[in-house]
Amino acid sequence: MKHIPYKTYLPESELPKAFYNVRADMKTDHRPLLHPTTLKPVTVEDLEPIFCTELARQELNDTDRFIPIPEEVQAFFRMYRPSPLVRAYCLEKELDTPAEIYYKYEGGNTSGSHKLNSAIAQAYYAKEQGLKGVTTETGAGQWGTALSMACAYFGLDLKVFMVRCSAQQKPYRKVLMETYGATVTPSPSSMTKMGRSFLEKDPESSGSLGMAISEALEVSMNTPGYRYTLGSVLNQVLLHQSVIGLETRTALDHLEVEADIVIGCAGGGSNLGGLLAGFIGDKLAGKKAPYFIAVEPASCPSLTKGKFAYDYCDAGKVTPLAKMYTLGATFVPPAGHAGGLRYHGMSPILSQLYHDCFIEEARSYGQKDVFETAVRFARCEGLLPAPESAHAIKAAVEEALKCKESGEKKVIVFGLTGTGTFDLAAYQAFHKGLLENTGLTEGDLQQSFRALPPQSEEF
Amino acid sequence: MKHIPYKTYLPESELPKAFYNVRADMKTDHRPLLHPTTLKPVTVEDLEPIFCTELARQELNDTDRFIPIPEEVQAFFRMYRPSPLVRAYCLEKELDTPAEIYYKYEGGNTSGSHKLNSAIAQAYYAKEQGLKGVTTETGAGQWGTALSMACAYFGLDLKVFMVRCSAQQKPYRKVLMETYGATVTPSPSSMTKMGRSFLEKDPESSGSLGMAISEALEVSMNTPGYRYTLGSVLNQVLLHQSVIGLETRTALDHLEVEADIVIGCAGGGSNLGGLLAGFIGDKLAGKKAPYFIAVEPASCPSLTKGKFAYDYCDAGKVTPLAKMYTLGATFVPPAGHAGGLRYHGMSPILSQLYHDCFIEEARSYGQKDVFETAVRFARCEGLLPAPESAHAIKAAVEEALKCKESGEKKVIVFGLTGTGTFDLAAYQAFHKGLLENTGLTEGDLQQSFRALPPQSEEF
Repeated sequence: MKHIPYKTYLPESELPKAFYNVRADMKTDHRPLLHPTTLKPVTVEDLEPIFCTELARQELNDTDRFIPIPEEVQAFFRMYRPSPLVRAYCLEKELDTPAEIYYKYEGGNTSGSHKLNSAIAQAYYAKEQGLKGVTTETGAGQWGTALSMACAYFGLDLKVFMVRCSAQQKPYRKVLMETYGATVTPSPSSMTKMGRSFLEKDPESSGSLGMAISEALEVSMNTPGYRYTLGSVLNQVLLHQSVIGLETRTALDHLEVEADIVIGCAGGGSNLGGLLAGFIGDKLAGKKAPYFIAVEPASCPSLTKGKFAYDYCDAGKVTPLAKMYTLGATFVPPAGHAGGLRYHGMSPILSQLYHDCFIEEARSYGQKDVFETAVRFARCEGLLPAPESAHAIKAAVEEALKCKESGEKKVIVFGLTGTGTFDLAAYQAFHKGLLENTGLTEGDLQQSFRALPPQSEEF
Repeated sequence: MKHIPYKTYLPESELPKAFYNVRADMKTDHRPLLHPTTLKPVTVEDLEPIFCTELARQELNDTDRFIPIPEEVQAFFRMYRPSPLVRAYCLEKELDTPAEIYYKYEGGNTSGSHKLNSAIAQAYYAKEQGLKGVTTETGAGQWGTALSMACAYFGLDLKVFMVRCSAQQKPYRKVLMETYGATVTPSPSSMTKMGRSFLEKDPESSGSLGMAISEALEVSMNTPGYRYTLGSVLNQVLLHQSVIGLETRTALDHLEVEADIVIGCAGGGSNLGGLLAGFIGDKLAGKKAPYFIAVEPASCPSLTKGKFAYDYCDAGKVTPLAKMYTLGATFVPPAGHAGGLRYHGMSPILSQLYHDCFIEEARSYGQKDVFETAVRFARCEGLLPAPESAHAIKAAVEEALKCKESGEKKVIVFGLTGTGTFDLAAYQAFHKGLLENTGLTEGDLQQSFRALPPQSEEF
């Protein structure tokens, strides 16, 4: 029998040279983004005040299957990629399962997660366009950190609006971004008109992702030579993240292993969309392909409990509208939610794929159960996972235990998106018994859906 | 010209299968450890109450060149090793140097440093002996974290005494160890006789590594089925860490690259000793070998300013005496020292090699300069280094700039021992301008040397 190593690294020469654009293969393409005031499909020109031009083009590109990765971005990738494809031998032994379990580990870079894959691409295109800098928002800090590394590399200025409570709870994330030269402003701030209006309503506001997006957008629009960037949800982000899935597929092919089940955690969809890129083309072409499972927190269940509807991407309702599974743009997960994946909507691409059953299943877990799995995994596999990633681990464990029942020797592949070393406050809360398996009631959901815009006929 | 990839990973089949014991190749072996009360050379039997038996044997073994790595330890190594040998193309470009710069990066595992290499070996031998658990001390937390991962893997109990001020400043390190099931007690504590005596003298004591060692030793001696462990300085630790250098050498051989200069930071010596393992055998045999540079902080300069003398390994003076470069067992770096590498002595093996000029050079840097280099490195290479590792980076940068002057195309290899993501408080202090290039005055040194025991004739 062929020996499978614990870790498989592709040689540098086999790293992807082009991003895979799944939209070119989708027969039902997802519905267009709509301009927030005209409600007409947006054009590249509409998006250019927000994103740099190449990214605006990528956002709307549904024809090119492959988009070459610029050499400068490939060079940066070579510094921290390939990420390893790991055979979880110890977890298999612990579960006593006949299943084979693999994970693609994206947390080995200093930013600690897969977000760096899109950050470096977005920074590159901004630099290419001659911009001075970019703005963004960050919640937990993964995206902000990744973007600060990317901007430092290309000598771009970066202004980050960090959700105030998060900036207070995670001061070291702020220090990390500052180390790479970013300016980090707790949001809401008095720097922007939007921020001042939020503060007028509530001077003690702890902030939200929606408010931070509004502030970052305002600054980018009002500062010559700046554009706005976002680390998930967008088509361009899934495009860049396709390197995860492409590498995974190539490594499995080398090992002569065929995946039966592919599992990814899903917040805005950047990781899951990236991971599927190695397999979804086959499925869309009607070929044999793995069963896909999206995993989300019970306290932010956009795929499992949300509506497939047109909605704004931000709480301030200034962004274009997208057709996606959503809980409503003003949705905020219940207090005490510690596991990340807190965005109200799901990537329009993944939403359409799920709607059309190309992603066969979505499931959600309570966070206490997720942390239990995370600790169990850490103690046997060594690696401490980010809480986000632990959602996928839990699904992988469940599938492996089903195999134990049935005796099936399935191949399970999941995405381990990040390290948990920046989430130790959440682990501490778990050890103290402070985390509950909070879900949403029907009442919560109905309340939340009221924020949805009216869905007109032509939608 | 041969293309050198950014990162070289050895295939699993080429990972070391035996630890390299440099003592078997040393013509002037370093002087024996002495029993603290009889002052006679210690025997395995003397060490058995402290360390588990196999480790006591390894500590005194100066005859076996190679000691097989147990299969169970090799299996754990396969989960996080090989560590990559990285070509620092971006740093070379930034420095505009003709030199080639490589680093062996050991910070990619969850514990964040090379310490895991010895932790897993020590935990394995303890498990093999049927022990229930082990005790240890930790300062910054690298060693304690590594050992907690190792003990979780083998199902061993672990009691960590963590220097009190460090436990307060780094609460998340404590959470991380607890996540892996360790019990972490801030030291000095009321749990031990030693701890209570320290607290009687000073109820507000912020603790020290020496006090924590004394407490960990006391608990291990008084608890049936427990032994004590230490993460640096010891011969056994350098033996386990030899995997760093062996991997580095094999990777360079594959690349057909010959190192001209090898650089490592040095606190207790675990990293430098490990890195040299790939090259020192040649040098001891009179063959062509690289020039070795040890780098230490100006505020804890055991090699550059210490005395080569017999000294205790702990402040409490209960451990055996070792012949080493030392600042005196009660030495504590000046307040404000943030860069790690704070042990008063240097590994007896490295001390002897330095004394005999097999390590050609030791140099020291002020911490402000070290952090400046660390930030510069992070911004161009992406990776945020631990402050300890940044000492080696600074020496590598200096050597590369010398090459720029001279036009020489030297090959510089350094050890990048850990990630800086657990050191963001120190980076914050640097950004705020709070770090000074503090060194020691002649008066400080003389004061410090007074703690040295009398050096008798037969020493």
